Amino acid sequence: MSWEDNVRKVTPYVAGEQPKKENVIKLNTNECPYPPAPGVAKLAARMEWDRLRLYPDPDASVLVNALAKYYHVSPKQVFAGVGSDDVLSMAFLTFFHGGKPILFPDITYSFYDVWAELYGIPYKTCALDQEFHIRPGDYRQPNGGVIFPNPNAPTGVFESLDVAEQILMDNRDVVVIVDEAYVDFGGESALPLLKKYDNLLVVQTFSKSRSMAGLRIGFCIGSEKMIGYLNDVKFSVNSYTLNLPSQILGAEAVRDDAYFKSVTGRIVATRERVKGELKKLGFSFPDSRANFIFAAHEAIPAGQIFQALRENDIYVRHWDRPRISNSLRITIGTDEQMDRLLDFLGRYVAGYGKCGASRIHAGT
Amino acid sequence: MSWEDNVRKVTPYVAGEQPKKENVIKLNTNECPYPPAPGVAKLAARMEWDRLRLYPDPDASVLVNALAKYYHVSPKQVFAGVGSDDVLSMAFLTFFHGGKPILFPDITYSFYDVWAELYGIPYKTCALDQEFHIRPGDYRQPNGGVIFPNPNAPTGVFESLDVAEQILMDNRDVVVIVDEAYVDFGGESALPLLKKYDNLLVVQTFSKSRSMAGLRIGFCIGSEKMIGYLNDVKFSVNSYTLNLPSQILGAEAVRDDAYFKSVTGRIVATRERVKGELKKLGFSFPDSRANFIFAAHEAIPAGQIFQALRENDIYVRHWDRPRISNSLRITIGTDEQMDRLLDFLGRYVAGYGKCGASRIHAGT
Repeated sequence: MSWEDNVRKVTPYVAGEQPKKENVIKLNTNECPYPPAPGVAKLAARMEWDRLRLYPDPDASVLVNALAKYYHVSPKQVFAGVGSDDVLSMAFLTFFHGGKPILFPDITYSFYDVWAELYGIPYKTCALDQEFHIRPGDYRQPNGGVIFPNPNAPTGVFESLDVAEQILMDNRDVVVIVDEAYVDFGGESALPLLKKYDNLLVVQTFSKSRSMAGLRIGFCIGSEKMIGYLNDVKFSVNSYTLNLPSQILGAEAVRDDAYFKSVTGRIVATRERVKGELKKLGFSFPDSRANFIFAAHEAIPAGQIFQALRENDIYVRHWDRPRISNSLRITIGTDEQMDRLLDFLGRYVAGYGKCGASRIHAGT
Repeated sequence: MSWEDNVRKVTPYVAGEQPKKENVIKLNTNECPYPPAPGVAKLAARMEWDRLRLYPDPDASVLVNALAKYYHVSPKQVFAGVGSDDVLSMAFLTFFHGGKPILFPDITYSFYDVWAELYGIPYKTCALDQEFHIRPGDYRQPNGGVIFPNPNAPTGVFESLDVAEQILMDNRDVVVIVDEAYVDFGGESALPLLKKYDNLLVVQTFSKSRSMAGLRIGFCIGSEKMIGYLNDVKFSVNSYTLNLPSQILGAEAVRDDAYFKSVTGRIVATRERVKGELKKLGFSFPDSRANFIFAAHEAIPAGQIFQALRENDIYVRHWDRPRISNSLRITIGTDEQMDRLLDFLGRYVAGYGKCGASRIHAGT
């Protein structure tokens, strides 16, 4: 008998690479290419850092109140955590405790099955259709809860709120989580459905559209009762999760709505332009409403393109998994970054099959 | 059937009150009365806040490396989290998975049973002796793991390393966690025992001795194998837990050892002086080696003193629980804060029993 016999052994989620070398074009983890709202750095510069000696507000009120005001809900309907992963992990632990399998799409955020395994939650996946769309009828079966991202990851496919509502109508007796990490790039939030469904939980993040991946802020909005249960579990794990900088600077980011709209607008414009260019190069993809494109080439295997890009310091994401192994998830960066990507791909595709094609350099 | 039937219902830990009003004397959550190392605010002032758009290093390498260097261990032996509560919660989830009851003292950090309940870990408490000391023989029984704080909370009692080693020797086949949140105020760390025991995990925090409760940093040190298992669970919960400010500013705090020693030295000096003064006022307490004193008065019930202090904007901590309901946990603040506390207590004790005694004001 050894102490190792008592250890919970799990297979962790593997996040996109965070290269330590400088000057790479990083299009692999769906970060925002633009800095946070200008007020954030200004506020940070005049923060009283001596206050760090005290515990932060356990309720993160300044941030929760800013979000409640922005989304026109009560602060009692808002829960904030250390990134949406923290929020989702807590939600799995809190709401999927019925013993019946939870349901989610077969192609989706690959953390869902990791949380399910960790917390011993049975699960079943429902296959997306050929165009990577959800078939709502699949969610009309006995289950312990439902979760899906909208837009979905890594496909970028957006489902209309009719689909979300259909799933909610069929599942009044379990919690339905809509993971809206990418909703600010042209999707439509399920928040208005909260008025009708007290079993709906909408999860969002500051890591993509609010340029704050480095601060780790996620949040969810649901019925007061639901948020109450979530807080009970949170306060059974860690009284103080969001540190002082996250609370203060996060709230500031919410206040600058003009900047938020301008950043997300720019990313959407770049995305639409890049879609056209990628098509010309022989790529195809489901129509993305997220800050990435999930693209497959008509002739060149995704794994090869991934390697060629990486050798030229352009990082995108590739999964060697059924149904998606021939696609690359390409984050939308600045126009300049996307031009460098397109320039490389243009030369790579043109030279493919010829000697030394994979050695083409991205240039400057 | 309702979605609420699937909810995990728990009774959360109740942290000390974080009063929102200003100018209170806050001696209730064991924070440090002095600011973080001066380099912290300087570094914050020149941080590139635009970097917040990117995810932080998932391994928190800059912080982990600083800690490894400071404690003369390999970075692979160090794990950092969002306060020691995050570290402890992960450790419970990872190492106490054997199904047998874990053991901890009956009077101890009151989060232990909350984590055990949350994660479905059976537990058994072992009664401290009359002087609030651990009886090592109690831990010589079949179990699924052991955890105890040293110094203990809320008593402040320190056990010699002989006691820790005795418990380790008797429990080679389970993980033994020594929770050293308060070790820097005159205790002795169990870290040297790591050379002999690969089942030992030592947990510490930046919230007390490093004046950084507001940043939320905790860490633990153990064998490489143990830290590996812990990381597998951590990466199954949330890839990025420590945000950029925590990593950068936390590492800076570790570097300024002279400041750290001066702050902890001042707190110890104040504590020893306050011990003498409290005794003169009729208080008794186990000898504390932490940044608090767990004091009971010979004549006045703790609950009454607690209320009187609170009405005069002096916050200490009181638990209405068996064996400890007649004691107050008083955090060591600045000398000036402690003088105001002692001044109030002097007048309160002198006037106790006379009309209106509880209305005495603390004055300035």
